[in-house]
Amino acid sequence: MSSPPKALTISIDAMGGDHGPLIAVAGAALSLDLLAERTVRFLLHGDEDAIKAELLRQPRLKGLVEIQHTDRRILGDEKPAQALRRGKGSSLWNSVEAIREGRADACVSGGNTGALMAISKLILRMTGGLDRPAIVASWPTARGITDVLDVGANIDCGAAQLVEFALLGEAFHRIAHPGNARPTVGLLNIGSEDVKGHQEVRDAHRILLEGALEIDYRGFVEGDDIAKGTVDVIVTDGFTGNVALKTGEGLARFFVNELRTALSSSLLAKAGAFMALGALNTMRARLEPPGGGPLLGLKGVVVKTHGGATARQFADAVKMAADLAASDYAAAIAASMARLQSALDPAASTVAEPVQ
Amino acid sequence: MSSPPKALTISIDAMGGDHGPLIAVAGAALSLDLLAERTVRFLLHGDEDAIKAELLRQPRLKGLVEIQHTDRRILGDEKPAQALRRGKGSSLWNSVEAIREGRADACVSGGNTGALMAISKLILRMTGGLDRPAIVASWPTARGITDVLDVGANIDCGAAQLVEFALLGEAFHRIAHPGNARPTVGLLNIGSEDVKGHQEVRDAHRILLEGALEIDYRGFVEGDDIAKGTVDVIVTDGFTGNVALKTGEGLARFFVNELRTALSSSLLAKAGAFMALGALNTMRARLEPPGGGPLLGLKGVVVKTHGGATARQFADAVKMAADLAASDYAAAIAASMARLQSALDPAASTVAEPVQ
Repeated sequence: MSSPPKALTISIDAMGGDHGPLIAVAGAALSLDLLAERTVRFLLHGDEDAIKAELLRQPRLKGLVEIQHTDRRILGDEKPAQALRRGKGSSLWNSVEAIREGRADACVSGGNTGALMAISKLILRMTGGLDRPAIVASWPTARGITDVLDVGANIDCGAAQLVEFALLGEAFHRIAHPGNARPTVGLLNIGSEDVKGHQEVRDAHRILLEGALEIDYRGFVEGDDIAKGTVDVIVTDGFTGNVALKTGEGLARFFVNELRTALSSSLLAKAGAFMALGALNTMRARLEPPGGGPLLGLKGVVVKTHGGATARQFADAVKMAADLAASDYAAAIAASMARLQSALDPAASTVAEPVQ
Repeated sequence: MSSPPKALTISIDAMGGDHGPLIAVAGAALSLDLLAERTVRFLLHGDEDAIKAELLRQPRLKGLVEIQHTDRRILGDEKPAQALRRGKGSSLWNSVEAIREGRADACVSGGNTGALMAISKLILRMTGGLDRPAIVASWPTARGITDVLDVGANIDCGAAQLVEFALLGEAFHRIAHPGNARPTVGLLNIGSEDVKGHQEVRDAHRILLEGALEIDYRGFVEGDDIAKGTVDVIVTDGFTGNVALKTGEGLARFFVNELRTALSSSLLAKAGAFMALGALNTMRARLEPPGGGPLLGLKGVVVKTHGGATARQFADAVKMAADLAASDYAAAIAASMARLQSALDPAASTVAEPVQ
């Protein structure tokens, strides 16, 4: 509250993403504008010469950066199992390991998602009962941002895992949107039938309704509630969430292409488009998704940016990592997991400590 | 080929949908333009007076219509189980029953989807092993129309059911798009991990790859392949398909609203939008989804239009029903189901008839 903000070190995989140090270093520099109130340092992992060359172009980073050289990197098409076997000492691996070693408070990588999940899980371990870290997608909506999770990591989810997503997502949304102290949460389902959804979804619904978890659960939502922004956090399994996300991305791209085609289809349309250009660009900026998403459920803060992120998007990811690291996120999650354990097994919480 | 087209009777639930006979009768009249080469008659179910009042406004239907009066109807919010118990004699029920009685070749309804599925299954029965009829959503894409199924009826699908969707969808697409004799088929999956998708999806993939089914199977596709039009038919379970469809619908509505807001945000933008209006309207028409989708897997042709369909969309649904009824769809599906049975149980096809 009134204590000075903690000094943070952000570990950055400078070789991840399509453009390596070019974007990572420029993104770190840009993040200083977003992090004005925080004292931040950067630990950059990757090819020292390439990183130094980029640092020359970013004088603002002078004195704020340490480089941990490695010439090893994980490729974009490596399988997670392969990355686990061969990834040790790579820029991605080292950037996560710095957290475990206490040399960094959070990490940002634009590298191979599957490898990042597997390596983060191995090095940092999970807080709860998930198979893998959950990926959050933040969608611009009619009413702000809706965070959807999981969008790709945990394929077969039981009720307990869906409830865990609700807790992780709610805590994340609260930190990413400090103005919203009590995010609303919905469970993705379909509504066309009287027998609604999978058994796991109905079981998760029951646990969430019981209310022991202290989140503002609003019940079932449907696919169109994502863009409507009906709730702040939408929970679903990684298969459904990934399909929904990619369907939306595909449609958005399609729509933009159709609009471009329409607005260049005649001289009149072109002239009209030229006049409306400012408004159209404002709209495009509003609809642009954030540049990164956290991997939730880990004992540590790891933020993934997409491979083609711009420096501005990379800077957003750095800010997200810093906000999470500086927050009470870890404590909030630990408390949530304890509540979840009690909710799943009410008897256990009223008896003495387990023996073991 | 050279034989004269068969005369068809289309059974219409005139009380279904938000506007009842107003749209159903106008839609039937408009369909005559689309069905120029076919001889079609209509069997209209519902309130005789209300239907007659609309018929006065559609002189082209004179002599082509028979009315089967009923003052019973199924409401939009009735549960399927309720509709099964109490729906007998309703306009929806009668319009399906006319097929079983041989008085109609196909049926069109804009009524309650769950009720229509349940009643159609009860009256007409299923051709294969699905729990309920599969609903097809036809998406406008960068390359034409992609049919996605199931989008809401069969929640928990095994591999055999997913393969059945592939056969039903492929046969449907062939008939709805006569220029495309060999539609391509993909199976919806996620691609971010080395262990891809649910077990059922991987099993279905294996069966489809074996090739005994004589369809042009292209393997796994992802959510963004829907809007890309990568394949003609995309197969998925009813839960995932429904979420994808509604996510897309929500996003499309959001995008249109954002565009409208942007283009009225300033005088300059408004003037530009006015100049580009023709092009924008052309785009909107191109992106408008078809007005109906068939319920597949039934022993009979049932087409569902959405409740708020326009007369033009209702006419499209009537044309779809007529095309399916006039085609070899039923025979194609019967042959496909036999091939599927052999593919699932290769031994059975090489031994003698089953005893039972």
